[in-house]
Amino acid sequence: MNRTSDLPETMRAAVLVAPKQLEIQERPVPRPGPGQVLVRVEAVGVCGSDVHYYEHGRIGDFVVRSPMVLGHEPGGTVVALGPGARRHTPGQPVSIEPGVPCGRCAQCRQGRYNLCPDVSFYATPPVDGALCEYVAVDEDFAHPVPESLSTEGAALLEPLSVGVWASRKARVAPGSRVLVTGAGPIGLVALQSARAFGASEVVVTDVAPQRLAVARELGATATVDARRTRLADTGYEPDVLLECSGAPAAAEEGLRALGRAGRAVLVGMGGDTIPLPLAHVQNFEIEVTGTFRYANTWPTAISLAASGEVDLARLVTHRYGLEDSGVALTAGAADPTAIKAVVRPQAG
Amino acid sequence: MNRTSDLPETMRAAVLVAPKQLEIQERPVPRPGPGQVLVRVEAVGVCGSDVHYYEHGRIGDFVVRSPMVLGHEPGGTVVALGPGARRHTPGQPVSIEPGVPCGRCAQCRQGRYNLCPDVSFYATPPVDGALCEYVAVDEDFAHPVPESLSTEGAALLEPLSVGVWASRKARVAPGSRVLVTGAGPIGLVALQSARAFGASEVVVTDVAPQRLAVARELGATATVDARRTRLADTGYEPDVLLECSGAPAAAEEGLRALGRAGRAVLVGMGGDTIPLPLAHVQNFEIEVTGTFRYANTWPTAISLAASGEVDLARLVTHRYGLEDSGVALTAGAADPTAIKAVVRPQAG
Amino acid sequence: MNRTSDLPETMRAAVLVAPKQLEIQERPVPRPGPGQVLVRVEAVGVCGSDVHYYEHGRIGDFVVRSPMVLGHEPGGTVVALGPGARRHTPGQPVSIEPGVPCGRCAQCRQGRYNLCPDVSFYATPPVDGALCEYVAVDEDFAHPVPESLSTEGAALLEPLSVGVWASRKARVAPGSRVLVTGAGPIGLVALQSARAFGASEVVVTDVAPQRLAVARELGATATVDARRTRLADTGYEPDVLLECSGAPAAAEEGLRALGRAGRAVLVGMGGDTIPLPLAHVQNFEIEVTGTFRYANTWPTAISLAASGEVDLARLVTHRYGLEDSGVALTAGAADPTAIKAVVRPQAG
Amino acid sequence: MNRTSDLPETMRAAVLVAPKQLEIQERPVPRPGPGQVLVRVEAVGVCGSDVHYYEHGRIGDFVVRSPMVLGHEPGGTVVALGPGARRHTPGQPVSIEPGVPCGRCAQCRQGRYNLCPDVSFYATPPVDGALCEYVAVDEDFAHPVPESLSTEGAALLEPLSVGVWASRKARVAPGSRVLVTGAGPIGLVALQSARAFGASEVVVTDVAPQRLAVARELGATATVDARRTRLADTGYEPDVLLECSGAPAAAEEGLRALGRAGRAVLVGMGGDTIPLPLAHVQNFEIEVTGTFRYANTWPTAISLAASGEVDLARLVTHRYGLEDSGVALTAGAADPTAIKAVVRPQAG
Repeated sequence: MNRTSDLPETMRAAVLVAPKQLEIQERPVPRPGPGQVLVRVEAVGVCGSDVHYYEHGRIGDFVVRSPMVLGHEPGGTVVALGPGARRHTPGQPVSIEPGVPCGRCAQCRQGRYNLCPDVSFYATPPVDGALCEYVAVDEDFAHPVPESLSTEGAALLEPLSVGVWASRKARVAPGSRVLVTGAGPIGLVALQSARAFGASEVVVTDVAPQRLAVARELGATATVDARRTRLADTGYEPDVLLECSGAPAAAEEGLRALGRAGRAVLVGMGGDTIPLPLAHVQNFEIEVTGTFRYANTWPTAISLAASGEVDLARLVTHRYGLEDSGVALTAGAADPTAIKAVVRPQAG
Repeated sequence: MNRTSDLPETMRAAVLVAPKQLEIQERPVPRPGPGQVLVRVEAVGVCGSDVHYYEHGRIGDFVVRSPMVLGHEPGGTVVALGPGARRHTPGQPVSIEPGVPCGRCAQCRQGRYNLCPDVSFYATPPVDGALCEYVAVDEDFAHPVPESLSTEGAALLEPLSVGVWASRKARVAPGSRVLVTGAGPIGLVALQSARAFGASEVVVTDVAPQRLAVARELGATATVDARRTRLADTGYEPDVLLECSGAPAAAEEGLRALGRAGRAVLVGMGGDTIPLPLAHVQNFEIEVTGTFRYANTWPTAISLAASGEVDLARLVTHRYGLEDSGVALTAGAADPTAIKAVVRPQAG
Repeated sequence: MNRTSDLPETMRAAVLVAPKQLEIQERPVPRPGPGQVLVRVEAVGVCGSDVHYYEHGRIGDFVVRSPMVLGHEPGGTVVALGPGARRHTPGQPVSIEPGVPCGRCAQCRQGRYNLCPDVSFYATPPVDGALCEYVAVDEDFAHPVPESLSTEGAALLEPLSVGVWASRKARVAPGSRVLVTGAGPIGLVALQSARAFGASEVVVTDVAPQRLAVARELGATATVDARRTRLADTGYEPDVLLECSGAPAAAEEGLRALGRAGRAVLVGMGGDTIPLPLAHVQNFEIEVTGTFRYANTWPTAISLAASGEVDLARLVTHRYGLEDSGVALTAGAADPTAIKAVVRPQAG
Repeated sequence: MNRTSDLPETMRAAVLVAPKQLEIQERPVPRPGPGQVLVRVEAVGVCGSDVHYYEHGRIGDFVVRSPMVLGHEPGGTVVALGPGARRHTPGQPVSIEPGVPCGRCAQCRQGRYNLCPDVSFYATPPVDGALCEYVAVDEDFAHPVPESLSTEGAALLEPLSVGVWASRKARVAPGSRVLVTGAGPIGLVALQSARAFGASEVVVTDVAPQRLAVARELGATATVDARRTRLADTGYEPDVLLECSGAPAAAEEGLRALGRAGRAVLVGMGGDTIPLPLAHVQNFEIEVTGTFRYANTWPTAISLAASGEVDLARLVTHRYGLEDSGVALTAGAADPTAIKAVVRPQAG
């Protein structure tokens, strides 16, 4: 291992030991394996799935059976190289893509590495996440970012990737008319991605006026307060639906709004099933799909964030040191103006 | 008008005057307009939608408000040319594509003419269909067929087009593993189309053993009797679902069976909504779409039928003269071995 | 015909009677046929093909055999409706898409109406163009434009469409690294289109420093003076080549620069053949195609021009009245700073 | 390592020591590394590239600088497993995909692993090939084949993959009209693949009547003797060109024959450049690309060969023991009826 400087032997990590129980533990600093790099973690975005694991100890079939570090949106700096790693020099700022696929299976070989059944993904049981001071990661998944991008920006390339992936799947292009249902962190990156892909109109719906205000700031051409206005009454007929609310009613309403040959991408997670309006899907030959994480999005996300086409800083409403990770995980529920909390592990 | 021979002034037509009331009426033989040809109708397949109009006088928002000729699967022979028509010579056997789009709107211009809001489609109110002796049609929608194809084969290129369209939308290709739910006429053309597109496996499900037997005859690599076996228990993980039953439970079961990056094409018409298994669609990034008729399928359908790769004759279980059109429309309900009834308007 | 006001019986038209001989003739104002509108022409861009017909009386197999009006980039205002026309009201500003396809043939039906063998295209022999005061056109090809767009902007949606079509064919998207060879009017719209489609880098090459300066103004991230610098020496490895120079050497150099799975779109017209670097095309699986006009580009072009993402005004360097059409056709050759000449038929 | 039985310590290998100098050497049997399997090689197809290395010691920039084993079309049987290998049991017949990519780079991640710059490919310097008794290979690239497939069939899945890849890139589908230029081994697999993908017409051109006769046997709907008939005179207007001759004149003639929106896939290797008919490519918006090996083709190729849709046995005209590898490499030049030579390393 080729270190930049003397690294400590141990580090602090925020460990979920039981639902709603987070402990700051002292753990060994990981040693980067062959082809890996060691990254000093400087910012970690808190995601809804982290909150869900924190609250319930599981998401569907994924159950936290032993203590696990949360967090899968890390930005940081390479501080050491494992054997054979050659893509970075220490000191390089990076954004970590938090899932490393096998690279060999049928899904990987076809470029759908996000569907790899053997992926190792941060903070998905039993794999530890990044709410800690150092992580080791495959060098190919530690994406170099320009100096112009803040470490928070580097961290938030992960949610931005979700938006880029949704826009790509929906084939958003100049002239597209887009509907984004839900103006949470994912809706807001979906909105910004759609604009960056050239959409001429992006209408955003939500039930929270504060969120709709942020959507307008970030480029929504119109917003709809779903508590007051039925989408059907607006007459808007989008080409593309990016469903980011997870609410079955919003999904159905959005699907029914789509024009001929419309495309719907279901990003928001919700119940087991949602009602699919069959006759509409058939008569208009609507295409519907869902997203599972993302593939090959980092280069695009870096480009969008670095050029300023996408504003990630505006998403960060709360910042915490590692010791306050538990507070960070509950910030959203406590504050209606919260969009995104970021933990800064080096900060205390 | 350039006639082959003396044509009669009037003809017989089977007219739906009220639900379950079909009258044989004497009507004027149509005169082909500019760019149209006059076709002597020799065979007309009876479709489920004809039966539905016959039984109920409507399909969803399409309501039969005045007497209407049923039938939209016609094969026949060109007998006269309208002004400016130049693609045929009288005597040419043809298969009629029963919907003529506007050719000008955004959908038409993008090649999705099946979604043209101004399409004129046979036997969709208020447009008369083909259960009669002669029809006039735009020359570009009277597709020449080789002599080797029977007039029944020419008629059944319409349902075959539904199968071709579904296979094309599902991107069936050599090596594909396909599931067809429903072994009615549409399921059987979907099955055959999938084989012609190169599918290496096509599993067909239905509740009727007779239909499953026909599916095996026509190339199904396996069949599943849905009354006895749950699809999930077979372990079959298809790439493609061609849903042809219209049964919401079959659709959901089929969707849940799909492997990663699977594609589902919903052909069968059913209720207003079907349950979409959201988590499965997301985790496996399943693509779901529906079909509305077809576009640009005739050349392919002609090629498949003429070469014998697809067997349309096997579908025809009942034949009637025009006078017995009412019987033809009820043949399916009366006889569990019925697949497809054909009316031969010239035969009596 | 439903006129806004009293229209004159005759109008002036700039007619090519022989190579290098343009006459201003008095001709009848056309009467809009069924489904057509009459448009008062307010601005017409001059295209290289107009210049070529003016100089040589032919382009390849297209020969001007009888007097023909040039010009196929018209913007104007609807002043009268033909029978059955219902998409406009008089006074509506429009941009005219100058080719009306048959809407019936195999190409049209598949959405490739630009390849329609029966298209009627302005200023392509023997069809008259738009260097005149009024033209009649199919209502579906007179695209309404917002008031915010100038009539010159409306006119220049035609060349912009060429750029949009090239970017679409090349699948330019956020993150794309693009090379545009040639910084003439087409290169400059290709550059701007590529930016609007999200390209993160667009490098433009030309032999004229003035043109490269305009390219930088309009968003090129870098420019290369091809007289001084070999592209290969820059180390730039684009994903996409938009070849707009028509120079075989530039095309070959651009093709050889493309990285793995690169796409090249050949827009510039040149000699009969260009050298295709076979081993490079194979080893890197480069995709190469050419463009012939455009299809379904106006809605996108309108959106890009109206939002200001694309700057069409910057292209116009010379303006003339109809009487000076001959000068307009030679402006480019006379002035090295010329980009685009526009004729204003109503202006004298 | 988990061996089926006692394996020898050494084996025979046919080693190219200098151009036209092949030696049978005794070498250690390789030991399968982690995730690898050891395969007893039972059949190896001889490819034109093997012949080229044998004759010239290089192909373009790839130079044989030290002794190298030739052969990259091996079929055989798994006889031992390396550490961690778990996809096979010893005794499993396999077809070896001869290039193992890195699985990590941008090309691999996008599913284009054939373009991986770090691929390790059999018999491409400096990597040894398969003209020997045993090879070790990554378990994921040793594709299990059904017993119904002969070991020669398993070997020839490699050239079949070239045909499958070309058909896939060309989007051959039911109804396609295909032109294959060149009826050597690659032309004959391209022809058969095109048929399996559903092409309704496949016309094959060559200068050797014997090869054209084999093409007709294997499903060509027509053949053209290029010495006697110009393709243009046949009036054939294909949708798809699969160029398998490597002759620039055939490529150009084939390109010029393509109809509107035609696709050309250049498979045959030839000179540095070929003439691209620019105006035709533009006017008809022809798409041109080349192939470099293949990606994700084995499952399809196995399915086509195992079902009998493709006849690989017909390609094998010459068989040799390992000792006669030198003869195998010169069989083609010596015998005009030769199509494919196969070496059987276990046979002597």
